[in-house]
Amino acid sequence: MQGLMASSKLSLTVAVVVFLLGMAGAAHGLTRVVANSPDEPCMNMTLYYHDILYNGNNTANATTAAATKPTALATTYWKNSTYFGALMVFNDPMTVGKALPLAGEEPAARAQGFYFYDKQESLTSWFGFSIVFNSTAHKGTLNLVGADLMGDATRDFSVVGGTGDFFMARGVTTIRTDTIEGLYYFRLQMDIKLYECYL
Amino acid sequence: MQGLMASSKLSLTVAVVVFLLGMAGAAHGLTRVVANSPDEPCMNMTLYYHDILYNGNNTANATTAAATKPTALATTYWKNSTYFGALMVFNDPMTVGKALPLAGEEPAARAQGFYFYDKQESLTSWFGFSIVFNSTAHKGTLNLVGADLMGDATRDFSVVGGTGDFFMARGVTTIRTDTIEGLYYFRLQMDIKLYECYL
Amino acid sequence: MQGLMASSKLSLTVAVVVFLLGMAGAAHGLTRVVANSPDEPCMNMTLYYHDILYNGNNTANATTAAATKPTALATTYWKNSTYFGALMVFNDPMTVGKALPLAGEEPAARAQGFYFYDKQESLTSWFGFSIVFNSTAHKGTLNLVGADLMGDATRDFSVVGGTGDFFMARGVTTIRTDTIEGLYYFRLQMDIKLYECYL
Repeated sequence: MQGLMASSKLSLTVAVVVFLLGMAGAAHGLTRVVANSPDEPCMNMTLYYHDILYNGNNTANATTAAATKPTALATTYWKNSTYFGALMVFNDPMTVGKALPLAGEEPAARAQGFYFYDKQESLTSWFGFSIVFNSTAHKGTLNLVGADLMGDATRDFSVVGGTGDFFMARGVTTIRTDTIEGLYYFRLQMDIKLYECYL
Repeated sequence: MQGLMASSKLSLTVAVVVFLLGMAGAAHGLTRVVANSPDEPCMNMTLYYHDILYNGNNTANATTAAATKPTALATTYWKNSTYFGALMVFNDPMTVGKALPLAGEEPAARAQGFYFYDKQESLTSWFGFSIVFNSTAHKGTLNLVGADLMGDATRDFSVVGGTGDFFMARGVTTIRTDTIEGLYYFRLQMDIKLYECYL
Repeated sequence: MQGLMASSKLSLTVAVVVFLLGMAGAAHGLTRVVANSPDEPCMNMTLYYHDILYNGNNTANATTAAATKPTALATTYWKNSTYFGALMVFNDPMTVGKALPLAGEEPAARAQGFYFYDKQESLTSWFGFSIVFNSTAHKGTLNLVGADLMGDATRDFSVVGGTGDFFMARGVTTIRTDTIEGLYYFRLQMDIKLYECYL
């Protein structure tokens, strides 16, 4: 499960689009920036989210576990189980590259939260989580909620708040399933775009 | 459970209140609009939310199921169970009219998320969900959280974010219990008012 | 569990920092205020959150109960259980002073929502909840989500929305563990700072 290569350095593309009406002040060197359009985020980064499910034997490596079982809605009627009602709790590493952190290496961030499967006919889920940054580069959190419509090539979560270096952030995160390895590992690419920032 | 009449056409009342200070730009034909007051939403719609609980026998029709049982707090002390701790996961149709969609008809939107009961003395719950639009009229999601204080005639959720056609939306949704039919069906009227929009 | 002294009067520090660019209008006497900086919230209050866990014998007093058990991730590998996957549902009193409300006394507000433990190596949790005000002083709700990184002296939640007297509020709440009494009671100090208000 441990990747051979990993980069723990997180580089952000910060496009400081300071325009007149979105600028609310400049105390403490901070300036509130509100984006003009979906194409002009005030901050921008891509991270990979690694979900390593507990399978009964990987206690030391697993970062996600089922808190509830699927309900009968997922199994009685639909022949392929869609896990309806299964609540998964996670504390997943997030990395700049696709590889998992090396043993002992800190990831760029950790995603802490939950998702649960919420449709009987097909696989879809709903997420609530924080991306927790605790590195020399960044300290603070981004808070996200949203539907993971797993049948779509890409889908969007809302960034509903931020703290620390991401004070009062808002934005949209576009996710894409990058890989699935059997039943116990999947990786999501998350393109995080903030449209309200204090820079 | 299938209604006899249904309208799948969603009509929005979009009040474009473009005023000077709330307007952040006009790239891509989009203009950020921030409302002046609670009476002047920048977008406005009413949808009905249909919660069809799984009762053990309605697997094909049910859209909600209990992922956890009520805790002893809901049953030991209080003679009428208040379901404290029961977590319900849902994928509910939302419609413009009060009737359920006809068989094979797409609803105006789907509400995907969860609620759980959270008071021992009386019925109250807490919701986190997305309203997922996937029609010719609208594509995108609204993300909501909030307390459903079921004893009040109306109560308010926060719209904390939006994606797609509802890019970066915020607002307030006022809900009202429209009907309860036995233990396994209830319908909520949701008046969704957005106060931050990109139009 | 009942405190000997309690104050149910909630005093807010409202710093009306009306500056030109953050001011969006003044209909109905309401003015939208957006803060310049982290040091200049538009509204500001401190409340104590009392979590009284159900222990099997305190049904009448308990305000929190476990809806799920910890998963094996919390117990198999780590010798000190970290409750990974335990979902707690709460309806907790919030007070201005540190004491619990007197019998029959209404608290300043109630916190209604959930948290769950989400790390195998140490104690951390994730919260989603509403602070519900229903007093002569205030009616309305604040909606919060965020990571409770319990190892840090202070940590921050996002206020992602508000309703009623807190219409469309956003902000940051800094929490601090004020006391822990055994396994069944803890108190958090919550410094709630709003940076977007309609005043």
